[in-house]
Amino acid sequence: MTRALLAAMIAAALFLTTAAGAAKAEDGYDLWLRYPPVEADAAADYRASATLLVVAGESATLGVAADELERGLSGLLGATPERAGAVSRDGAVLVGRAGDAAVAALGLDLSGLGAEGYVIRSVIMDGRAATVIAGGGDAGALYGAFHFLRLIQTRQALTNLDIREAPAVNLRLLNHWDNLDRTVERGYAGQSLWDWHKLPDHLDPRYTDYARANASIGINGTVINNVNTDALSLTGPWLEKAAALAGVFRPYGIRVYLSARFSAPVEIGGLDTADPLDPRVQAWWRAKADEIYALIPDFGGFLVKANSEGQPGPQDYGRSHADGANMLADAVAPHGGVVMWRAFVYDDGVPTDRAMQAWDEFVPLDGQFRDNVIVQVKNGPIDFQPREPFHPLFGATPETPLMMEFQITKEYLGFATHLAYLGPLYEEVLDADTHVRGPGSTVAEVVDGSLFGHRLTGMAGVANTGSDRNWSGSQFDQANWYVFGRLAWDPGLGAEAIAREWAAMTFTPDPAFVEPVTAMMMGSREAVVDYMTPLGLNHLMATGHHYGPGPWVDDLPRADWNPTYFHRADAEGIGFDRTASGSNAVSQYAPDATARFADPAQIDERFLLWFHHLPWDHPMPSGRPLWDELVARYDRGVDAVGEMRRTWAGLADHVDARRHSEVADFLAIQEDEARWWRDSSIAYWRSLNGLPMPEGHAPPAHDLAHYRNLSFPHAPGHWD
Amino acid sequence: MTRALLAAMIAAALFLTTAAGAAKAEDGYDLWLRYPPVEADAAADYRASATLLVVAGESATLGVAADELERGLSGLLGATPERAGAVSRDGAVLVGRAGDAAVAALGLDLSGLGAEGYVIRSVIMDGRAATVIAGGGDAGALYGAFHFLRLIQTRQALTNLDIREAPAVNLRLLNHWDNLDRTVERGYAGQSLWDWHKLPDHLDPRYTDYARANASIGINGTVINNVNTDALSLTGPWLEKAAALAGVFRPYGIRVYLSARFSAPVEIGGLDTADPLDPRVQAWWRAKADEIYALIPDFGGFLVKANSEGQPGPQDYGRSHADGANMLADAVAPHGGVVMWRAFVYDDGVPTDRAMQAWDEFVPLDGQFRDNVIVQVKNGPIDFQPREPFHPLFGATPETPLMMEFQITKEYLGFATHLAYLGPLYEEVLDADTHVRGPGSTVAEVVDGSLFGHRLTGMAGVANTGSDRNWSGSQFDQANWYVFGRLAWDPGLGAEAIAREWAAMTFTPDPAFVEPVTAMMMGSREAVVDYMTPLGLNHLMATGHHYGPGPWVDDLPRADWNPTYFHRADAEGIGFDRTASGSNAVSQYAPDATARFADPAQIDERFLLWFHHLPWDHPMPSGRPLWDELVARYDRGVDAVGEMRRTWAGLADHVDARRHSEVADFLAIQEDEARWWRDSSIAYWRSLNGLPMPEGHAPPAHDLAHYRNLSFPHAPGHWD
Repeated sequence: MTRALLAAMIAAALFLTTAAGAAKAEDGYDLWLRYPPVEADAAADYRASATLLVVAGESATLGVAADELERGLSGLLGATPERAGAVSRDGAVLVGRAGDAAVAALGLDLSGLGAEGYVIRSVIMDGRAATVIAGGGDAGALYGAFHFLRLIQTRQALTNLDIREAPAVNLRLLNHWDNLDRTVERGYAGQSLWDWHKLPDHLDPRYTDYARANASIGINGTVINNVNTDALSLTGPWLEKAAALAGVFRPYGIRVYLSARFSAPVEIGGLDTADPLDPRVQAWWRAKADEIYALIPDFGGFLVKANSEGQPGPQDYGRSHADGANMLADAVAPHGGVVMWRAFVYDDGVPTDRAMQAWDEFVPLDGQFRDNVIVQVKNGPIDFQPREPFHPLFGATPETPLMMEFQITKEYLGFATHLAYLGPLYEEVLDADTHVRGPGSTVAEVVDGSLFGHRLTGMAGVANTGSDRNWSGSQFDQANWYVFGRLAWDPGLGAEAIAREWAAMTFTPDPAFVEPVTAMMMGSREAVVDYMTPLGLNHLMATGHHYGPGPWVDDLPRADWNPTYFHRADAEGIGFDRTASGSNAVSQYAPDATARFADPAQIDERFLLWFHHLPWDHPMPSGRPLWDELVARYDRGVDAVGEMRRTWAGLADHVDARRHSEVADFLAIQEDEARWWRDSSIAYWRSLNGLPMPEGHAPPAHDLAHYRNLSFPHAPGHWD
Repeated sequence: MTRALLAAMIAAALFLTTAAGAAKAEDGYDLWLRYPPVEADAAADYRASATLLVVAGESATLGVAADELERGLSGLLGATPERAGAVSRDGAVLVGRAGDAAVAALGLDLSGLGAEGYVIRSVIMDGRAATVIAGGGDAGALYGAFHFLRLIQTRQALTNLDIREAPAVNLRLLNHWDNLDRTVERGYAGQSLWDWHKLPDHLDPRYTDYARANASIGINGTVINNVNTDALSLTGPWLEKAAALAGVFRPYGIRVYLSARFSAPVEIGGLDTADPLDPRVQAWWRAKADEIYALIPDFGGFLVKANSEGQPGPQDYGRSHADGANMLADAVAPHGGVVMWRAFVYDDGVPTDRAMQAWDEFVPLDGQFRDNVIVQVKNGPIDFQPREPFHPLFGATPETPLMMEFQITKEYLGFATHLAYLGPLYEEVLDADTHVRGPGSTVAEVVDGSLFGHRLTGMAGVANTGSDRNWSGSQFDQANWYVFGRLAWDPGLGAEAIAREWAAMTFTPDPAFVEPVTAMMMGSREAVVDYMTPLGLNHLMATGHHYGPGPWVDDLPRADWNPTYFHRADAEGIGFDRTASGSNAVSQYAPDATARFADPAQIDERFLLWFHHLPWDHPMPSGRPLWDELVARYDRGVDAVGEMRRTWAGLADHVDARRHSEVADFLAIQEDEARWWRDSSIAYWRSLNGLPMPEGHAPPAHDLAHYRNLSFPHAPGHWD
């Protein structure tokens, strides 16, 4: 036996144990950064392109980029590339920034990358074949390193690379609705990741893994506390905790932001007012900003929920949202900070349609905000429903940059146990045509600043992360974190391509797995729409926790919190008339969009009952009456979940047992709950319309009273 | 190169990678069941004694026992023993029960083991050397398997084994103060382990690991919901969740128990009373018990906190604790269930010393309880303080079995970040001499039933487990779970031997690590006593959360919740006079104990201020006046933590980096907080006594106002 054979056998043995070790540990903690060994036949080629690792400069971020390359390549290829000072061999990987000498010497066109963009190029250096990962700045180099690893993770070639990437929007942020007692509003993945009590003295290693995961998808900021915030979060001890987190995140290109409670000057500042025009209030916020920046030099700025759902705000003092936002903006401006001012405002004291109030409030303020203010708008005019039309503010404020707010956590889409890939939802909104500058004026172009020429741009996602081992409450909810980051980087990527990429990295790149799983993911959100809120219905969830159906609820203290407010069903028909004969919310859109939405014959039927109140026998494009169509949608949704279960069951050979069975358990729960949604909704509609079940569709399993009597006082994610 | 050499090299390579993999994964999740590879020189000997695994019978429990042996042996020895049907080779391990043919054939004396006892014996079977692990029943076989593994984990020989074990008490239970919203009262390790919302449909694999850990230390029951409970936990949906957990725990010999809310017949039963003498109430509980046993055939029974701290109870209807307990006992008796009735009752409407009220309440009821009732008594008469004298009920109820209740979670000993090994606390209480049947009538003999001849016996520990990756909030808090289980099995084991065993299994058996760590652990609780509550002081913690010092607090709505109630310090002196000149609580002990406690000259100074109010210049055995002694104790406590930090820093080479740095971070927090305790306490005492600092002792870092102004509204574990 030769030494070479012996070495090969030992290598094989090592490889097998490593693989076994990795398989044993699979519980979702490693997300899409698992780096399991590539198939042996492909690994040799990849290894030839990753023989050396050359780091072109020195910085904390380059350090973590190099560490990640080492970790990823050694996992994927079973061989750790040697670190070297120069490209002394074919197959070197050079990582650096535009300003580093070894990168500059290559003479690549690195203009316009900004600090976060990067180029990955196959080059010849000193006569050796190499791959250069060149960032415009530190963050770009790190993002490029993750991109390079992703090429291997998704089994793309490393030859003839010519990649150039730069982010579409500047602020790519997670919003954590995390409270100071470590509960998470609308969180379904355990407690807050932030172990406040042990901060700042103990830094859970998980904070670093959180930063790695975010950096790998281009997220560059995190608002660490709930928008419904406690002023305490702005006091010294809590700022020290925030600073400790910022220190962990900094090398990963991630800035910390804070939600600011507007009344903080009263609650923790000893003032008797929070009036934004009061000089004492202005001085207090300036001093507070100075205090924060002394602790966190790269602090990002404030996120504010004001005069909304009981939160304090400038209107308490007869001032406008612009007055409030500008006062805070002036406080952070000397330090380069921004203010993200939420447009999610509504008031049941205002007689207009809840869907119209943000537009009514903010359009008149267009042009009045400081340059470092961006208004953060939820994707739809109500509240993160399974489906909503795009928010009419998008396109309606040419002078004011708007930041998209998506919800990653599934408050209204079945919590952690329903598989609903949100890529199609995000894509549908971003691709929606506002028509404000003619056809093709997409929401994406509003958000990326190109439509009106804004330079301050952003996209926020309400995080689904928590202390659960799998981070997001379920394996598949990790995909929603992933797709949010990837689309914030490039809204043009497409939900399907991102699903495919995620599935390959998170489970296996085997097409026999990736293709059916991608199809399952792509249909999953539509299934939820079908079994919960078909044909434009919305906000039919049970009270408080939003767990399960409650279309019958009509006794909440605020009219605009009741499902009956939203569906307006009675013996004759169903739906919210938002045309000229009703609230006329439709008029808030640009004329071309309005025309489409306002005509029941032209409107995309997915939005039908959002804009129209129609009789139960209204004829649908399918030829069926509305009632029959509605029932058919419920059944389609339930059937789709059954199909998802069968698909997943058939993929057991491709997935480690633990993750497979977790997903299978959750799909079983989802199927039960889809039936519950379908049956209880149909039972309720029938109690109003008295119609028989359409032929071929089974009646609900129980009577309406059964469903109305169910109660779930301890469902997670509650806010009160 | 020979094939043998090749095989050896591959084995070595496998071994190294396995070891590296294990090292990488160390985060505390594996507890004391890590099974890392034994040193090469010892492994060969061990392997010779574990060549074959023979399972003598078939049952779910034997199955998990065999799986654990396989898992443990393959991890420790790098070689999985072959499974075989008979002892066909030297070095076999036979595991089975007394009734299994292969075990019975050995003719061992297995009498008196009960179902949980076991024998481990080196034997010759069919001419082959073997080790037999013979349980009296299923649980005994499993406990024996864990014992066998522990021999290797602690590097004891496997030759000439002659081990016989049976538990000292019957009920060895964890009490989880876990709420239905997944918060944990007095929990410092994240959320409840029970993911209620996903139960019963999804069984987190962690439930199984919880059961393994408990079985490994002999815990055989778990009360899964808080004693401050919600009646909802007795409704159908929640019973199904409990049943799902019971199904996971059953093979591990662990029964599920529930805390029962006394007023449940009103709250969920539709009755207008919960009077235990009302036949409708009795019928309701009988039906409820029947319902529970239909779902959980081996349900253990109820734990009840009644007429205590606002909980409902029989006294609401003018009935006694015995009336209440007996009514529930009758409901579960047909199914073999028990009722554990807590003696933790006190009422600020009652004019007597809070420390006396449980005795006053329960001693008159002695003899009135059903046979399946056991009264559960906290170790001391107040509430889980760093140090208390033993509870005077121990020994005072010859007709009534008493169950010990220890707190494993460190509500009053620094939460998760203070290292305080509770073994010495438990041991001190168990070894305490009640003197009720002459000298040597220890608390342990009351608890194990031997003093009064009781057959229903038990020990409960208020769990410190939660969703944190390390289970208990810190690495060293795992030791408190461990020592509770081991002492409940055998109170005679001794805290020090158990610490040594735990440290060896959890980190490394290297004496260079185990000896200093054991010493550090053994002194750690005394350090907490010194810096928090020296010389018999107690209950000086801040309000509500009990985080940090609050000796000055005197404004709570109940007198007996105020620290000033407990320390009674003023310009002249300090301490609670519980002698005949004061509350005379001392008279609740047996005469010999009373005599010792009542005389300031005879009393162990550790209990001095518990029983005596003394002038600040009272001369102490050291020759110093009381004030000087008190200050010296505070300093000794702070110094001890500094010494612990130095010890731990010197052990870095023995511990994986992640666990080492977590412990080091927490010790740094502990040192800061020990100083905070010392400084704020001294500042407060000086504000009363006006005395100068004794020579050689530094004054507090800040003035009293500084300490009084600190507030921690979101400290974890709060109950309200």
